Amino acid sequence: MCVCVCVYIYRERDKRGTRCIGKFIVEASAKFGHPTFALVRESTLSDPAKANIAKGFKSLGVNLVHGDINDPGTLLNVIRQVVVISTVEISPEDQYKIIAAITIVGNIKRFLPSVFGNHADRVHAVEPARIFYAAYYTDILRLLEEQGIPYTYVSCNFLAGWHHTTLAQPGATAPSRDKVVILGDGNAKVVFNREDDIGIYTMKAMNDPRTLNKILYIRPPANTYSMNDLVSLWERKISKTLERVYIPEEQVLKKIRDARSPDDLMWAIYHSIFVKGDQTNFEIEPSFGVEASELYPNVKYSTMDEYLDQFV
Amino acid sequence: MCVCVCVYIYRERDKRGTRCIGKFIVEASAKFGHPTFALVRESTLSDPAKANIAKGFKSLGVNLVHGDINDPGTLLNVIRQVVVISTVEISPEDQYKIIAAITIVGNIKRFLPSVFGNHADRVHAVEPARIFYAAYYTDILRLLEEQGIPYTYVSCNFLAGWHHTTLAQPGATAPSRDKVVILGDGNAKVVFNREDDIGIYTMKAMNDPRTLNKILYIRPPANTYSMNDLVSLWERKISKTLERVYIPEEQVLKKIRDARSPDDLMWAIYHSIFVKGDQTNFEIEPSFGVEASELYPNVKYSTMDEYLDQFV
Repeated sequence: MCVCVCVYIYRERDKRGTRCIGKFIVEASAKFGHPTFALVRESTLSDPAKANIAKGFKSLGVNLVHGDINDPGTLLNVIRQVVVISTVEISPEDQYKIIAAITIVGNIKRFLPSVFGNHADRVHAVEPARIFYAAYYTDILRLLEEQGIPYTYVSCNFLAGWHHTTLAQPGATAPSRDKVVILGDGNAKVVFNREDDIGIYTMKAMNDPRTLNKILYIRPPANTYSMNDLVSLWERKISKTLERVYIPEEQVLKKIRDARSPDDLMWAIYHSIFVKGDQTNFEIEPSFGVEASELYPNVKYSTMDEYLDQFV
Repeated sequence: MCVCVCVYIYRERDKRGTRCIGKFIVEASAKFGHPTFALVRESTLSDPAKANIAKGFKSLGVNLVHGDINDPGTLLNVIRQVVVISTVEISPEDQYKIIAAITIVGNIKRFLPSVFGNHADRVHAVEPARIFYAAYYTDILRLLEEQGIPYTYVSCNFLAGWHHTTLAQPGATAPSRDKVVILGDGNAKVVFNREDDIGIYTMKAMNDPRTLNKILYIRPPANTYSMNDLVSLWERKISKTLERVYIPEEQVLKKIRDARSPDDLMWAIYHSIFVKGDQTNFEIEPSFGVEASELYPNVKYSTMDEYLDQFV
């Protein structure tokens, strides 16, 4: 399985139904199930005979790229098809392996590193989260910049399925119906996103010039809640008042110091998010980032409000 | 439209039906219609829960690439997906534009330059064919070698639809029923291939390590005929004897000298093929080439014999 990029130029002989080889190669590639891209000239569509060939290509699933061989931009774009997405929270060492491979392969279209999480550069994290963020996110971002690898860094904040269902209570498997533990004063705003929405925003962003070498923050207004407001929302849904146990910052810091690895890291990340509000306590400046729900207003993302209904 | 290469590593949380983002990104990519490749570990298939995710990916049309992030080979291969095929007999200048773009984009998987034709390095052509072959084929091949661009050079010889139908008579639109003009003594062997067979062989070859930096000669035994034998085949089919008009080499050379451009080039190419036998008068050495019908014996290519039946 390969990706076939065919530079196909319609010739007059094609019109006579005769046998220029280009058309047959494009067709064979599509019939073999290879994702096939054909560069065709814009003028192709205005001539009925040419448009017919283009239609035949389309019916076989060929992706027509309109452009001209004399325009270096389209030619580069048609060849530079590959976007690499690293989708897992893997170790920095694994990220480096992917980046090394990208460097060898050359100039891919875009790389989306495995940083689907909180934004690292502007967090106020204590150890061991500080060094974790630096190694997993910041250092990798710097390397991409140094290497000139075109990237989009997706900062998707919390995953809904992991945190919505538990009201962000470590160890829980469903939203509590009696007691919730809240770190800090519960007023820091945190962001919860559904996984399929993150997928949609990622697909929209990966080929968008506005997200090139930028951080895409997925911070939809309707999914940005303080823990106090989130618990209130859940209370209204189940018509019940929960006991709220607040853990002040000093105690959270003590938990981090006293916990063993990897629990100390988890608590330090929670401290950054729930106490320091690091998911939301900065403005997204055009110099470094864009916000997904602003950039793609037509995406109807799932709201926390709807999402929690299933657990009522 | 992009090609998405996702480095997806199954995590235990996936098993619990919960929400690791990798799976969602892979699914979103396929649902958006992007050709999607996912690197998954070999071990994924032995575990039922993992196999289930792999099955889900497959049903969405995701191309699973088995490998490991620790194996640089698979990682490079999964990123290096793009094969560029230049399918038209375009000018050398246009070929150079494509090669320049490939050089900028970097290390693509394979380039198949637009040399679907006669093999240039071993022809005994007179001018203006000699310089034509050098500019269109030989110089481009040398440039690819110099630049280290992985290539396969498809030498498909004559196109069936263009030459079968006319018994290689310039200007004819159907096989003659009275007279044929034969250049030289008619004993040089020439090769005729159907366009769709060329497409199939090209697809087989483009990702085959045996064709890397080699010339793929499409020279199936059943389609290799001298003009004398070809005319005899046609005569048997129509049960009629044709008048054979032989043009000796000296007269062909005079035609080349006297003709105006581009007819002089056409006659010089015909001289190389029909008089000198340049399609077949050399052995295909493993150092530079492979023969398609030997390499892919399972391809049932169309024969000249069958092909001519439609005109009887």
